[in-house]
Amino acid sequence: MNEPGKRMTLIVFSNDMDKAMAAFILATGAASSGMQVTMFFTFWGLSLLRKKDPVPQTRTLVEKMFGWMLPKGADDTTLSKMNFCGAGTRMMKDVMRKKNMPQVGDLLNMALSLEVKIVACTTSMEMMGIKKDDLIDGLEIGGVTTYLGEARDSGINLFI
Amino acid sequence: MNEPGKRMTLIVFSNDMDKAMAAFILATGAASSGMQVTMFFTFWGLSLLRKKDPVPQTRTLVEKMFGWMLPKGADDTTLSKMNFCGAGTRMMKDVMRKKNMPQVGDLLNMALSLEVKIVACTTSMEMMGIKKDDLIDGLEIGGVTTYLGEARDSGINLFI
Amino acid sequence: MNEPGKRMTLIVFSNDMDKAMAAFILATGAASSGMQVTMFFTFWGLSLLRKKDPVPQTRTLVEKMFGWMLPKGADDTTLSKMNFCGAGTRMMKDVMRKKNMPQVGDLLNMALSLEVKIVACTTSMEMMGIKKDDLIDGLEIGGVTTYLGEARDSGINLFI
Repeated sequence: MNEPGKRMTLIVFSNDMDKAMAAFILATGAASSGMQVTMFFTFWGLSLLRKKDPVPQTRTLVEKMFGWMLPKGADDTTLSKMNFCGAGTRMMKDVMRKKNMPQVGDLLNMALSLEVKIVACTTSMEMMGIKKDDLIDGLEIGGVTTYLGEARDSGINLFI
Repeated sequence: MNEPGKRMTLIVFSNDMDKAMAAFILATGAASSGMQVTMFFTFWGLSLLRKKDPVPQTRTLVEKMFGWMLPKGADDTTLSKMNFCGAGTRMMKDVMRKKNMPQVGDLLNMALSLEVKIVACTTSMEMMGIKKDDLIDGLEIGGVTTYLGEARDSGINLFI
Repeated sequence: MNEPGKRMTLIVFSNDMDKAMAAFILATGAASSGMQVTMFFTFWGLSLLRKKDPVPQTRTLVEKMFGWMLPKGADDTTLSKMNFCGAGTRMMKDVMRKKNMPQVGDLLNMALSLEVKIVACTTSMEMMGIKKDDLIDGLEIGGVTTYLGEARDSGINLFI
């Protein structure tokens, strides 16, 4: 058995820029301090893991529609509040660039290089018609059982 | 004292279809694998437990207004994003039906039959003028002390 | 080492009236029953800690804009749903007053008097140009490491 204080799991349900940032700052902070971190990307959160250019493959009309409407990866996100048709998000991204703060895409890469385990939720993939090829490399796929197995041994479990 | 790894509590604050699904998938998944699960329905989440047809009783004007505006139970929910005046929600429900995925109402029934403990938050009931008769059968009512008592002994505690 | 069952941490990410209420009801409930509670206010949640009247100091244009647009403290919040341009929020506040329920500002004061530890997130402060002088007295400031240090020893950790 592990020491629960050394492990953290995050369910990333949202694809809002602000919540994604919070999730990745927690994950990279914990991994940097030697904790074992697993992030489960589910529902809207799954779109944070999409590649910019979808691999061509047969899709139903509904799957195509999801493909058009969902954000294309970690850099295509907007604020959950004060978005103002994109102006608020642009302003926030500018501020972050000026202060040399990492953007969501940078934080995702940092998480991968710190060996944070990135898991894509199979149920959400099926529901939205997202295939493994549509998602970035270096991730695993898993369902609720995978999540529960990890969360059970972790001292910090959050739903974001 | 119990084994915390065998227990999970979920605070269901939201009544969005997507978040309700996440909550019930976690709850039924955990209960199926032998965990003891308690779900606390509070604030907007409380409306997931409403009966379709409210029992007639004396209500203030404000209580009537809450009654009209809040969703009437687990099947009357909409997506938190991409709802598009209901079209997005309908599309998602269609997809789920075609793929034989359970809807929110089905998942709630599944949770009840798996003996997930369903608790309605007393403070929220008072605030919104919801009486116990307005809610489905088979649930308990309780406040923050009830919650804390259960969460303290649980290894997984999430706020959804 | 402490007893994890005696400690709770809450990340308060949101500044919605409803979520703030949930957070403070949990925090004051736990503190009243003898638990040690730490609340981390991050991103939008940070604005719950703002003083009504900002201290005059040099600010960039963007910092001024954030200052105008973000709620000014715990009493300047609105519902996440059914706000209806403020009418829903006013209605809810009226109901609470009539039922003698504490408002968000009252709950914050209650939390402070119960010795709940209030921590403002340094990264969010920098991002939004909020200085320590802009925030109420009696709080600490800290980053993700502070959070992880506390959460590791706590049995209940929630993201709100």
